[in-house]
Amino acid sequence: MPEKSQATRAGTRPGGRSARVRAAVVAATLAELAEKGYDQLTVEAICHRADVNKSTVYRRWGGVDGLIADALALSADQPWPIPDTGNVDEDIQLIAQEVYATFTDPDLRTAPTALIGAALRSDLGAAALSAFFTARHQQAAEVVTRAVEQGQLPDGIDPVELIRAATAPLYHRLFITGEPLDERAPHRAAAAALLAARAGLFNRAEAEP
Amino acid sequence: MPEKSQATRAGTRPGGRSARVRAAVVAATLAELAEKGYDQLTVEAICHRADVNKSTVYRRWGGVDGLIADALALSADQPWPIPDTGNVDEDIQLIAQEVYATFTDPDLRTAPTALIGAALRSDLGAAALSAFFTARHQQAAEVVTRAVEQGQLPDGIDPVELIRAATAPLYHRLFITGEPLDERAPHRAAAAALLAARAGLFNRAEAEP
Repeated sequence: MPEKSQATRAGTRPGGRSARVRAAVVAATLAELAEKGYDQLTVEAICHRADVNKSTVYRRWGGVDGLIADALALSADQPWPIPDTGNVDEDIQLIAQEVYATFTDPDLRTAPTALIGAALRSDLGAAALSAFFTARHQQAAEVVTRAVEQGQLPDGIDPVELIRAATAPLYHRLFITGEPLDERAPHRAAAAALLAARAGLFNRAEAEP
Repeated sequence: MPEKSQATRAGTRPGGRSARVRAAVVAATLAELAEKGYDQLTVEAICHRADVNKSTVYRRWGGVDGLIADALALSADQPWPIPDTGNVDEDIQLIAQEVYATFTDPDLRTAPTALIGAALRSDLGAAALSAFFTARHQQAAEVVTRAVEQGQLPDGIDPVELIRAATAPLYHRLFITGEPLDERAPHRAAAAALLAARAGLFNRAEAEP
């Protein structure tokens, strides 16, 4: 486990050698994954691309699934730019639009699509994906908390539930049903989530009548 | 590919030897998957359990991912009992409840959870999963079509979109975010989907103003 290794302890100093190695190895993992896909992903090719020793990678990450999990952990730690237009409906629309753009724009979609697809291929990856979404949902929930404080949404709403509802239909099509996504999908998902939230459907249990 | 083999052509006669072999092999695949998980799944163990020759299985299904894909194809072909209570709100609630029960009831959840998880582990499985969901959505959409005819829902709704919205939040948590599902989740998903449908959010493109 990373916590136990010298390398990772050193890596907690931002910009230290270990952090640079981590960044290079994760970038190489994403690039290899995007180019070749999970089935062709090898530690050898990642090490070659990152110019890092294989023994370092095996010791610190265990193998490809550990690398995929760490790529997600690194993403989860990065601040997610959350919209703040002053209008919660617009903010929620922008959050759904950003998910849509990330996974449909030809210039953006390859790496994140490959990363989530790869995470679903192992238990280690699935656990990292779960932690990633927990972090993202909590960051984005700020939009809802702010709107409740400003009276744009009623008290009692579970903020994470609204964020989840505004994005779930997109991930569902992309990674489970494989159904095509069109540009109306993010709009529908965001509008339906806001409607349900205002109807009290996403209220926290203790806020229910 | 199955269409090209003698065995599969024979299998189109219901109850024929080939259909019986298929049923036995698929049942063994599901049982092995539920017991051991995808990572430990082997053609050998499946053949042993189904009492079928390994060469038959490799010729007809190629390997474990082909078996998983065929298990989904067999499920997709089976009629799904669709509720008909006379009240569309109740019908949609029952559809969401059935998904919830299937994947959370300790006596029911193991095989379908393992099957969908396994399908996400290969391109072949993912394609079969997509076809499976397309078939299920179309079957369930009957509930919505009927409700529109009876005036319980407004004209113009895309029936599949309502079914998808009523179930997507459940699959999203189960198979993507790994967040816990509680009994309020199916109720919320169904009620939010109905609310959005009645607000015109799921209208077909040509039905939009």
